[in-house]
Amino acid sequence: MFASIRGRYGLAKQLVSTVRAAVPRGRTTLPAAGLICRANYHKPVRNEAFKRLTKDDLNFFKTIVPSETILATAQVGGTADAIELEGFNADWLNKYRGNSQLVLRPKTAEQVSQILQYCNTHNIAVVPQGGNTGLVGGSVPVHDEIVLSLRNMNKVRSYDELSGILVCDAGCVLEELGNYVGERGHVMPLDLGAKGSCHIGGNVATNAGGIRFLRYGTLHGSVLGLEVVLPDGTILDNLSTLRKDNTGYDLKQLFIGSEGTLGVITGVSVATPQRPSAVNVAVLGVPTYECVQRAFKLARKRCGEVLSAYEFWDANCMGAVLKHHELKSPLSAEFPFYVLIETSGSNKEHDDEKLGALLEELMEEGIAEDGALAQDDSQIARMWSMREGIPESLGKTGATYKYDVSIPIPVLYDIVGDIAQRLEGASLYKPGDMTRPVKIVCGYGHIGDGNLHLNVVAGQFEDRVTEIFEPYVYEWVASHRGSISAEHGVGLMKRDYLRYSKSPEMIAYMKRVKDLFDPNHILNPYKVV
Amino acid sequence: MFASIRGRYGLAKQLVSTVRAAVPRGRTTLPAAGLICRANYHKPVRNEAFKRLTKDDLNFFKTIVPSETILATAQVGGTADAIELEGFNADWLNKYRGNSQLVLRPKTAEQVSQILQYCNTHNIAVVPQGGNTGLVGGSVPVHDEIVLSLRNMNKVRSYDELSGILVCDAGCVLEELGNYVGERGHVMPLDLGAKGSCHIGGNVATNAGGIRFLRYGTLHGSVLGLEVVLPDGTILDNLSTLRKDNTGYDLKQLFIGSEGTLGVITGVSVATPQRPSAVNVAVLGVPTYECVQRAFKLARKRCGEVLSAYEFWDANCMGAVLKHHELKSPLSAEFPFYVLIETSGSNKEHDDEKLGALLEELMEEGIAEDGALAQDDSQIARMWSMREGIPESLGKTGATYKYDVSIPIPVLYDIVGDIAQRLEGASLYKPGDMTRPVKIVCGYGHIGDGNLHLNVVAGQFEDRVTEIFEPYVYEWVASHRGSISAEHGVGLMKRDYLRYSKSPEMIAYMKRVKDLFDPNHILNPYKVV
Repeated sequence: MFASIRGRYGLAKQLVSTVRAAVPRGRTTLPAAGLICRANYHKPVRNEAFKRLTKDDLNFFKTIVPSETILATAQVGGTADAIELEGFNADWLNKYRGNSQLVLRPKTAEQVSQILQYCNTHNIAVVPQGGNTGLVGGSVPVHDEIVLSLRNMNKVRSYDELSGILVCDAGCVLEELGNYVGERGHVMPLDLGAKGSCHIGGNVATNAGGIRFLRYGTLHGSVLGLEVVLPDGTILDNLSTLRKDNTGYDLKQLFIGSEGTLGVITGVSVATPQRPSAVNVAVLGVPTYECVQRAFKLARKRCGEVLSAYEFWDANCMGAVLKHHELKSPLSAEFPFYVLIETSGSNKEHDDEKLGALLEELMEEGIAEDGALAQDDSQIARMWSMREGIPESLGKTGATYKYDVSIPIPVLYDIVGDIAQRLEGASLYKPGDMTRPVKIVCGYGHIGDGNLHLNVVAGQFEDRVTEIFEPYVYEWVASHRGSISAEHGVGLMKRDYLRYSKSPEMIAYMKRVKDLFDPNHILNPYKVV
Repeated sequence: MFASIRGRYGLAKQLVSTVRAAVPRGRTTLPAAGLICRANYHKPVRNEAFKRLTKDDLNFFKTIVPSETILATAQVGGTADAIELEGFNADWLNKYRGNSQLVLRPKTAEQVSQILQYCNTHNIAVVPQGGNTGLVGGSVPVHDEIVLSLRNMNKVRSYDELSGILVCDAGCVLEELGNYVGERGHVMPLDLGAKGSCHIGGNVATNAGGIRFLRYGTLHGSVLGLEVVLPDGTILDNLSTLRKDNTGYDLKQLFIGSEGTLGVITGVSVATPQRPSAVNVAVLGVPTYECVQRAFKLARKRCGEVLSAYEFWDANCMGAVLKHHELKSPLSAEFPFYVLIETSGSNKEHDDEKLGALLEELMEEGIAEDGALAQDDSQIARMWSMREGIPESLGKTGATYKYDVSIPIPVLYDIVGDIAQRLEGASLYKPGDMTRPVKIVCGYGHIGDGNLHLNVVAGQFEDRVTEIFEPYVYEWVASHRGSISAEHGVGLMKRDYLRYSKSPEMIAYMKRVKDLFDPNHILNPYKVV
């Protein structure tokens, strides 16, 4: 039946080529302000032990960093309009909002050191900020913390083309690094939708996962070294460029995923894999979640070492992305589930053969009901934009509650139906009825990693909706020994729910580690632990 | 020229098939006692703050663990002969030796917890011990510490064949785990010569590298969770089976590579990759170290994602292994360097084609002067035994000084010649002259990881030899921003040299982390930091 599948690909090719525009990557437009209720989250009370900033503090900072790198409002003796600080105070979802009156954008680790030392001495709270693309309120102030933006630290420090080891400032944008190493025959070991805005330092601080995790694994493996400034001003220089180094405790690991609460990452050393010379992408229409799993099992078997991504999304996600991004599906009909398979290898012919055999088998066995194989780079980009455009298109539809969970694969999608049912039971949701308080309940994510993004799109963030699934979602995940945060982190959003994934003993030792590195708790307060 | 290379392979096949015996894997025989001067290392003075054991202590331990799991000498009120404790007191190289009078072999984490709690309260020093295959004196007592052996904790706790996630006791032997997951279609993500004796808990505690590092990366990426008992008896249960979990600080990372100085690992959760269905191994004869590097670059290019090992060794290593293991070289002549290339993939035909193209190119360009491709599993095993037999065959030749360093690849082998020259200058060594104090200076290792094993074989460990390369080797490595321990760890051997690879600030924070988890410093004293 290979010929007939090829025939389908021919059709698919035509369909894909009619897709009108790739989703713009990087930081997306903020949703219209009226759509989102910003205040609807539990904001911890300000810790009055933290000093309120004065003009004296501003004057001191002026002696450390150039004045053009400071944004200070009149409240602290500066001249900036509050609106200029907007992008630093509000998060990407416009869900979390702080009230910082001072943004510092140092250019060197030494400046960061002097800033932190001063803040530590004077008990001034600080939020380190990268590209501010986080989803759990971790990268914006809660109250009047100083925002310490790393965006002026954006240089590549060194690159070794033989070993593929990159050393760079923390404020380098992921996509720009990808282009840089790409021109030199390598790829970054991580990739995510926010690549156009997010910083490598923020990626490391949040232990970002993304779509290459399946192939290149966690940052705990890829990151070879870090330069970190501690609250007392100590610069921990551990910017190793060695793949192996067993000399004492691997302290850098603690900062990976610490969300800016233990130290400020100012430099990163990371191993970049060789760029695959052949990349294939296919999108499949799949009848059931069970078939999504079966297809994954077969994909691992047939494609083995060249399988580089296996993503899925449901019909509701597809509906949103097709509507908001003016994309056309590369498939001939609608399906309950969609799967994107990517292979990346060193030999195009071999990869084509492996993927071809897989697709043939999937179609023959009825695991997939339709499929389209991208014929060139622009089709590859468009297929990816369908998957990567989901978060933005949901955001355009309404206020999006986002849950990012790890659950054993067999039951991973159950929670989506479960939540929909609960919302229906409370008369808050009816599938397809966009006039209800809840418009969309949907799921997508990284099957291979057991990582589901459960999204609920409502007209606005409101308590009667929230209480349907909080803490229900966390209880559900805990009952399956899952993680309440697979890759987004804890931030402000999940601090009170940490106990669903970690034991009291673990949390107690986390607090002691926090005390060790940041005894005054000035770094990113109110978050993580 | 493919045909002529095939012709060579035919010859090679014949040669390989005449290799008489595979090197026995696992723990090797101890060298004859007379050969090695055991006392010749700097032994720190006993810390008299540690309690000396009495019969009361023994009686307490008898209430915790079954008596058959206790080995106690008359000195502490027991009945065991000192010789019964020999295997726990002396290391694999017979270089380091303690004087423990009590070995406890608990069967559960709860027993470990009760033991540690008692020791912590009474200030009794403890050495956690796995398979005791370490090379830096980290796994044996220095003085009279209790040996806490994990060998009775050797059960698989769970295995998920779909996800490949294994949860097991720390005392499981690596090779046995490899067989277990192998029967279920997976492989362990690490492999090393000592696999027949080493424990997974010890592997994790020392962050073992080995020959699959190139393909599957570090244990910081593969280990998903740990169960760790802290000195105060707290059991940190973090045996997650999730590939992604960003809920708070990743504390388990601290224990990976901490060499038993922060807590005792009692359980391990690890992701096991799919077993490749096709494995190829070739051995090459290479004229220069520069060609070893060029071959590596080409191997990465041609074999890409299926390249699973790239090992090299020099002529001196080859001489020792052929002599002591009664192996025959699969090649037709002697060469200055040898390279072993392994591919592992999901499609035999594709891998053969990739490796074939590589070998052809290497021969045509004169990068390799001869090559042999294993034709079946037993030939693969014999080729590997040549590489893996090196440490044992050097040990049989004399007292082996072992340095395990990370150095930038281009200068990696320079240090071998440099050390040989210094020894010649001091009239301690003359290449080929086995009557000199130093018999062999050689190098081998994992080129792909920038990891060299520099070995110096002497008649005995003696100061006039040692002082030629200590601290010279460490200074040399530091001057190239390398690591004085790539994968073996610090142990007792390198504690005083940590500063060559880590800054004073890093070491200071390591000490604070030690204080946090083990405030009385009862765990594996005198070592690491």
